[in-house]
Amino acid sequence: MSIAATKQLRVQLERIKTDILELAELGRDPADKGIYRMAFTDADMQGKQWLQDRIKAAGLTPQLDGALNISAVLESGNDKPRIMVGSHIDTVPCAGALDGTLGVVVGLECLRCMKEQGIRPGRDVELIAFSDEEGRFGGMFGSQSVAGQMNPGAVATMKDLNGILLSDELKRHGYDARYALDAARDPESIAGYLELHIEQGPVLDRLKKPVGIVDEITGLFTWAVRLRGEANHAGTTPMDMRNDAFMGLAEFANELPRILEENGSDRSRATIGKAQIMPGAANTVPGLVEFSLDVRDTSEVVLDELAAALRKALSAIARRRNLMFDFEQMSYLQPVKCSDLIVNRVIEQANHLGLSYLKMPSGAAHDAQIMGRIVPVGMVFVPSKKGQSHSPAEWTAWSDIEAGANLMLHAILSMAD
Amino acid sequence: MSIAATKQLRVQLERIKTDILELAELGRDPADKGIYRMAFTDADMQGKQWLQDRIKAAGLTPQLDGALNISAVLESGNDKPRIMVGSHIDTVPCAGALDGTLGVVVGLECLRCMKEQGIRPGRDVELIAFSDEEGRFGGMFGSQSVAGQMNPGAVATMKDLNGILLSDELKRHGYDARYALDAARDPESIAGYLELHIEQGPVLDRLKKPVGIVDEITGLFTWAVRLRGEANHAGTTPMDMRNDAFMGLAEFANELPRILEENGSDRSRATIGKAQIMPGAANTVPGLVEFSLDVRDTSEVVLDELAAALRKALSAIARRRNLMFDFEQMSYLQPVKCSDLIVNRVIEQANHLGLSYLKMPSGAAHDAQIMGRIVPVGMVFVPSKKGQSHSPAEWTAWSDIEAGANLMLHAILSMAD
Repeated sequence: MSIAATKQLRVQLERIKTDILELAELGRDPADKGIYRMAFTDADMQGKQWLQDRIKAAGLTPQLDGALNISAVLESGNDKPRIMVGSHIDTVPCAGALDGTLGVVVGLECLRCMKEQGIRPGRDVELIAFSDEEGRFGGMFGSQSVAGQMNPGAVATMKDLNGILLSDELKRHGYDARYALDAARDPESIAGYLELHIEQGPVLDRLKKPVGIVDEITGLFTWAVRLRGEANHAGTTPMDMRNDAFMGLAEFANELPRILEENGSDRSRATIGKAQIMPGAANTVPGLVEFSLDVRDTSEVVLDELAAALRKALSAIARRRNLMFDFEQMSYLQPVKCSDLIVNRVIEQANHLGLSYLKMPSGAAHDAQIMGRIVPVGMVFVPSKKGQSHSPAEWTAWSDIEAGANLMLHAILSMAD
Repeated sequence: MSIAATKQLRVQLERIKTDILELAELGRDPADKGIYRMAFTDADMQGKQWLQDRIKAAGLTPQLDGALNISAVLESGNDKPRIMVGSHIDTVPCAGALDGTLGVVVGLECLRCMKEQGIRPGRDVELIAFSDEEGRFGGMFGSQSVAGQMNPGAVATMKDLNGILLSDELKRHGYDARYALDAARDPESIAGYLELHIEQGPVLDRLKKPVGIVDEITGLFTWAVRLRGEANHAGTTPMDMRNDAFMGLAEFANELPRILEENGSDRSRATIGKAQIMPGAANTVPGLVEFSLDVRDTSEVVLDELAAALRKALSAIARRRNLMFDFEQMSYLQPVKCSDLIVNRVIEQANHLGLSYLKMPSGAAHDAQIMGRIVPVGMVFVPSKKGQSHSPAEWTAWSDIEAGANLMLHAILSMAD
């Protein structure tokens, strides 16, 4: 079958269902119904074995690189830069069935469809399931390895929250973590990377769109902020003699909407997710607060402007309230623009399939964000019911999964033509 | 010596110093320099023994009632309603040397001066050191017993934070807690109760006044408030699709100054001292906050109006932000007005002694608040350096202690005339 003759080709939803439901049993805790397939645990290794078996069953050859990424190539017979498609199958603790998994299972179904139709693509099409996207050992380990962003020091010292070294955990399974460095690819060998993922937000579900086409992946910075005042007796300290650290935080939090309106875009987010108030007694004016600030936008310039405005607001509040203030940047992730070429190809195919789509940013980080540093990338979202993810409540209607999978199939066919 | 001839009588500061410094060694932790003389601990029982010895040394007879309150009476020979003066010698953990102790030591010095001058007062003058003011077993145990506000059920079930029953702790020292009920006095037998205490706030220290004359003791209510929204991903949830429980709290906290201005007095205080944000991850929009609200004023009417305004504000914020809100009143303490007669006597004597004083409310609760429910009360404050108390940093200049003690001596003489 030539690619031109594939216009009517569709994925088989039943096979996708079977794969998702099978994989969902690996690492499942019968008590809370959550899935515990954190990177390089026994359950994750079982998942990797399961995937390799499914690849073989599709008549393809599974490959394992030094970062334990699993891939399978539908050969073109030429050495033009390839199309990569994938996601991850590791999970957070107490996960749902779709985060990451759906992108891998759909990618496999796309290759399976093409293989059984005897399609020889115009360039190699590679399915890849990246290791440790969710961050047991820091996050995006597999895609960072492929993107050549690992180094021997990092590989040797990465550990999980329990202090277990990545290298020890891999050794336990018979692997040597140092080979992760061999997973790096030549960017010239890759024409583009495409990833299907659940949205993990409420937008598509609320707007009743079956698919989202991602044009930008947000960057973010996280600050740990400290405001120090003076702890005092809540009864004996008049309101105008207080240096109440919590009231400083409350004033700052209340300024966030203004700061976003003045300096942000409609894609900006600012969140105070964590705060500790000390000493933390009902009858004591708080002397110290420590809180997190998570700020995201798809533009680096906007992120910089938000950072400047937030700093100014904090320092003005601290000055006025006679508080000491300091902060530390805990993380920074650059925003990534998806490739216009890929986005347009995906849009064309959505139109071809008659799918109502929303062009939208990705507010969460994905392997595509790492791959986007070295090659053109694109992402397709399917709706998350009520925006829920990282919980057993995570779900997407099968009909939306089918729509997303067909969009992926035709986007791949179009890119591999 | 007749009372009329006592105009030149003064306390002996050296004796007060000695007593304070001696008592400060009982329960002292050499590591953090704090005093740990919590009610009915061995250290507190040592303190009670020390006080009885000091009373004997002054030629007076120590008495122990069923609540283990210690008293000493300077006899008048008649049965007119008596003047009581005192405070407490138990402490919070890691306490300073003056909270409570100063009032007892000064009271003792006043009786000592009168005794050694051969003064026979016009009515009995009784020094009392109340048990467990600080609240190891709930607070104000001694004064509540004297005020007849204990009952057998309460006495039998009161326990400390470690689950130790008051009754077991008293048994350990050879006492029976049930006798606490026998400590109740007939209000008709008491003409007034006068208490000297450190301010525990910054006002006198900032205004450089040696003494404060308390006209009202603030009442308070404490609420445990809960705002429930929805936890969501900080990156994928647009700002206008959030039900951020913490932002609800921040908005409410920011409304407090307005609510106090509109509904409170210059003696009103409102404090959010404790808050828990859940789930409490930097990348998660908070779905739940639980926080404490401590509100004080010297007028019951004002407290009621503040409660109504706070409820309205909370419910409007919850409605607008689509949060669920509930609260529980954790404690309520009625404000107490000091006796005009006693306040005026104290002011007269401050003028007689040439002391610059401030008429002020007490923002903290004291034994006088309990005694004020059954008899006329008055309080004298001395400055707390930087407003600090409940810490080893708690201190008052000796000259201010001397001024406060002389004011107490002359107020007692005047009231006992």
